[in-house]
Amino acid sequence: MKFYDCATAPSSRLVRIFIAEKGLEIPTQEVDLRHGEHLSPEFRAINPYGTVPVLETDDGQHLTSTQGCWRYLEAAFPEPPLLGTTPADQALIADRVWRIDLDGVHAAAEALRNRSRGFKDRALTGLVPVAQIPELAERGLARTQRFLESIDGLLGDSEYIAGDSFTAADIIALVTVDFAGWLKLKLPEDAVRAQSWYEKVAARPSAAL
Amino acid sequence: MKFYDCATAPSSRLVRIFIAEKGLEIPTQEVDLRHGEHLSPEFRAINPYGTVPVLETDDGQHLTSTQGCWRYLEAAFPEPPLLGTTPADQALIADRVWRIDLDGVHAAAEALRNRSRGFKDRALTGLVPVAQIPELAERGLARTQRFLESIDGLLGDSEYIAGDSFTAADIIALVTVDFAGWLKLKLPEDAVRAQSWYEKVAARPSAAL
Repeated sequence: MKFYDCATAPSSRLVRIFIAEKGLEIPTQEVDLRHGEHLSPEFRAINPYGTVPVLETDDGQHLTSTQGCWRYLEAAFPEPPLLGTTPADQALIADRVWRIDLDGVHAAAEALRNRSRGFKDRALTGLVPVAQIPELAERGLARTQRFLESIDGLLGDSEYIAGDSFTAADIIALVTVDFAGWLKLKLPEDAVRAQSWYEKVAARPSAAL
Repeated sequence: MKFYDCATAPSSRLVRIFIAEKGLEIPTQEVDLRHGEHLSPEFRAINPYGTVPVLETDDGQHLTSTQGCWRYLEAAFPEPPLLGTTPADQALIADRVWRIDLDGVHAAAEALRNRSRGFKDRALTGLVPVAQIPELAERGLARTQRFLESIDGLLGDSEYIAGDSFTAADIIALVTVDFAGWLKLKLPEDAVRAQSWYEKVAARPSAAL
């Protein structure tokens, strides 16, 4: 296997942490997004979408989404389970991950990519230029703030985002909280359960990656 | 189990077709989105996000995303597999589904919800009003068109979207092509493989649902 990563990209951090939590060491190649390496013919031969993360499997398959990479690693290396084992757990984790991807990751990306000069004409990932829309930056900020406020409720009385074990739902929630930090947004001070959850997951060795 | 559906919503059609392909019959309750039934206290007690689909499992869990519903049904009723069996198949299907959700479903929703009067202040699903952004309607149309043009390439030399069997990737691609039809967008005439794939999947009994 080989992992194509970018140290600063939240999308590939999702897979980096997952790999570490599985106890795997996979040869990793850094892709220099800042200098457009993802647009090069060499990288486009690996991933025509020009995005990270990419996981190259031993039979040469290129997985080009977090979901694809996670699912491969979970199926090939079941322990410890990060996507659930029983139907109920698997479903709850899938539900939470989808929700956090939409309300958290997409929202923060919407805010960042529509306001930063560095993302001019790159309001969406990929190879086709997409113009920034200032209203969307505002909308993304408001959505990200609402997401941060929702974490206490997602936790309820559970230790982790999808029950009593650490799962991929915690990985995506952690990455989103840190991503929101780039926008200077934080967990509400009075979100006591969310604060305590964050301290716990951020202290795991994988979170340093 | 109980399934909360809405006959006109592409999101719940994704689950409706999946249920039919599994050969299951699940008691179904129609939710009248047009008249705001999803905003009622009764429905919000079932799904606080105010969206369909919702699958209520026999132990009372409410799954509120297509991903959650699909994963539950696949784990509880493995045959026929729609989310893959080998790690490589599971991963490819997850990759394709994520990609089509982003480039197809999200794009078409962006176009529709930002231009139709019926979606005024409902540019995103959920309970919080979100204003329409006309530029986003244009962007969504262009993205949906690009998605339709991409299907031939996704198929390559395969019979189906993720290889040689019908899977959930075909379900989401089919639903997206039909959703794009609401925007008067079609598969390109010269997309021969995509046209032939569409005829085949649209002829399945589940596609009539």
